[in-house]
Amino acid sequence: MTDVSTCPPLTRQSVREAHDRIRPYIHRTPVATCETINILASTPQAERCPSSGPNAAAETAPHDHNRTDNAGRYTARPNVKLFFKCENQQRIGAFKARGAFHALGRLIEADGLESVKKKGVVTHSSGYILMQQAGNHAQALALAAKTHGVPAHIVMPSISTPSKIAGTKSHGANVIFSGSTSDEREAVVAEVIKNTGATLVPPYDHPDIILGQGTQALELEEQVEAMLEDDPALGISGRKRLDAVIVPIGGGGMLSGICTALHGTGIRVFGAEPRFEGANDAEQGLKLGKRIEKVKTLTIADGLRTPVGEIPWSVITDKTKLAGIYSVTEEQIKAALKLAMERAKLFIEPSAAVPLAVMLYNEDFREMVEQEAGHEGWNVGIILSGGNTTVEAIAKLFAAPEKEEERAAAKVTTNGESVAENVAG
Amino acid sequence: MTDVSTCPPLTRQSVREAHDRIRPYIHRTPVATCETINILASTPQAERCPSSGPNAAAETAPHDHNRTDNAGRYTARPNVKLFFKCENQQRIGAFKARGAFHALGRLIEADGLESVKKKGVVTHSSGYILMQQAGNHAQALALAAKTHGVPAHIVMPSISTPSKIAGTKSHGANVIFSGSTSDEREAVVAEVIKNTGATLVPPYDHPDIILGQGTQALELEEQVEAMLEDDPALGISGRKRLDAVIVPIGGGGMLSGICTALHGTGIRVFGAEPRFEGANDAEQGLKLGKRIEKVKTLTIADGLRTPVGEIPWSVITDKTKLAGIYSVTEEQIKAALKLAMERAKLFIEPSAAVPLAVMLYNEDFREMVEQEAGHEGWNVGIILSGGNTTVEAIAKLFAAPEKEEERAAAKVTTNGESVAENVAG
Repeated sequence: MTDVSTCPPLTRQSVREAHDRIRPYIHRTPVATCETINILASTPQAERCPSSGPNAAAETAPHDHNRTDNAGRYTARPNVKLFFKCENQQRIGAFKARGAFHALGRLIEADGLESVKKKGVVTHSSGYILMQQAGNHAQALALAAKTHGVPAHIVMPSISTPSKIAGTKSHGANVIFSGSTSDEREAVVAEVIKNTGATLVPPYDHPDIILGQGTQALELEEQVEAMLEDDPALGISGRKRLDAVIVPIGGGGMLSGICTALHGTGIRVFGAEPRFEGANDAEQGLKLGKRIEKVKTLTIADGLRTPVGEIPWSVITDKTKLAGIYSVTEEQIKAALKLAMERAKLFIEPSAAVPLAVMLYNEDFREMVEQEAGHEGWNVGIILSGGNTTVEAIAKLFAAPEKEEERAAAKVTTNGESVAENVAG
Repeated sequence: MTDVSTCPPLTRQSVREAHDRIRPYIHRTPVATCETINILASTPQAERCPSSGPNAAAETAPHDHNRTDNAGRYTARPNVKLFFKCENQQRIGAFKARGAFHALGRLIEADGLESVKKKGVVTHSSGYILMQQAGNHAQALALAAKTHGVPAHIVMPSISTPSKIAGTKSHGANVIFSGSTSDEREAVVAEVIKNTGATLVPPYDHPDIILGQGTQALELEEQVEAMLEDDPALGISGRKRLDAVIVPIGGGGMLSGICTALHGTGIRVFGAEPRFEGANDAEQGLKLGKRIEKVKTLTIADGLRTPVGEIPWSVITDKTKLAGIYSVTEEQIKAALKLAMERAKLFIEPSAAVPLAVMLYNEDFREMVEQEAGHEGWNVGIILSGGNTTVEAIAKLFAAPEKEEERAAAKVTTNGESVAENVAG
């Protein structure tokens, strides 16, 4: 990875330059809208009738857990129209392609292609075994490396599922097995670097990655303006552009990138986080005024299990850049996932459903939008960050209730780390 | 429904006029492409390595059942690029909105809005209980009727699932229950007509429906040309337009509409049918030279369980309009469904996966394309007809193997008709 001291500053202009750099290699992913979900999002939770639609179960998803004790109480009526940025249709099926192509492109600019080809690049799977995020980043790096003819080394726990290993191998990467703890993996990475001179490309905590991930916001901004120009009925009456964007946050590469991309535009940026077992480390950290460095959660949003990284933290604590972080429960994530698939017909991974879950079910967020947006309403961008799951994983998530107990029972402990059956494996 | 004798002729020009009529009410659905699926479709089945990708199970889906006895034999290498017409993102989640809006629009033109408002319209759920196709048509008619302020009566078996009934009700339709046999349903429809004067709008066997369903082909044709103009790399080198389209066939409204729309353009139209329990009635009928009038199948492609209708039959037996029909097994449909979701990230119902299954797994079709298209190759349109399924239905389809036996065991017999647990319910 390029030395941090030589990186471009974290500014909107740098994101523009990153976009120019990666444009030939990535998809300009489509933006989708869905009438039914707009109506649901603009209806108070207490007024969503369980029998009023074909997806009764999803539409009566549990309210915020602090608030279910008060049936029939007032619930907010925000006026919103949603624009889904379909990064599930990005290359390798997730936004991670942006950061990987940008980081490798910058490395090649800095060191020269021949040097990078000689040394190669390396990354590893992160904290939890079989975690989706590292899988996406590893696949993205493998693709970027193959595109430029650069050797890529991917360090993975030896008990990774065959399909995930095959996915990375298919882009020509050299897969190296390690033990399952982070110490064991880091030792193998160090060995690869020692033997080959390969450069480590981390998944989120680096300016080149952050700038690459931010590029999707520039596209979304332009695409929404063009869509509203063509058909004003897609948006909130009289408003010609986005008012806000909701972005998933795990390690924070994407959220800090989008905060950077939209800084100064007046478009508010919100983070969306799972809450299960303390996965909402960024939300809690902002409250405490201190970054939480360790997280141990098995949320179904498996791309968001990581604590926020140092550089992303320095961006999201800037109140002129981030407007707030809101979290949701596992059931709310499942309900949003179900709606995205069944109503918008978009196949996404659980992590990608978290922003929609905040919009539909987090009552604090909804009250804030009702107050800030008023009658006029907001056009809200929803980042669908990836679609790398399988029909079998979806089957496990939505199997009959008795099956879920089996799933919970399938947790085992290996090498002192908690290991879950990979719901997105 | 307008009297058949007063309908426009089944010509490309009539489809154009139908398109002008319905354009304000329907979505111009997007067209998607997927590099990974293009590569798979252009790779001989025998060379698709089980461990070469993250979806090994899908990529090693069973070959045509007549041919699996000969491992290692030659399999065809057609050169194709695919263009997915996303009618799963059409209003009500399926192409049926086109036919319903067109049929009602023509009725209003013929009889006057006031008369139609006074009498209303009626339709019913078809042959098998809980069948997806009738559900889609009923919902489409309910939406079209609501749009024009026309009362709609939907006759449904009393054991329909609550969610399906709610879906139809949500468009303001008057849902009337009947027994589950077709005789019982037809008696209730006759009673509704007698009491209200409502006009019956059948799901496929009428020129107004056929012309409406054909409109998607005009869009696809234009969209592919525009996409290839923007980015020639999306298509087969040197070819600026579609060479062929593959279309699901159940009752045949859509297939005959698309045959009509593309007649004289040089774009070949193929039908794609499930084979399970004789669901391939159109393929068999073409071989016998005689329309098969009864079909009793529980194929997972539940929108395609119907025998082809009389008027559609008169179109598809014209060899200048239809180039052929090919069928696929249940496992091939599941494998294509899995690929469409996991790789193209498109949420579709099983019926919509049948054309992709033909492209990927029907060796007769693939040999024909290899011979006809040669080295040059074809740009092939794939109609994704709808996305009205649920995550729970997907869970049942892809649950662990032992669960499938339970599903098969769940078949029961009621009122002399075979009833399956509704996989898309």
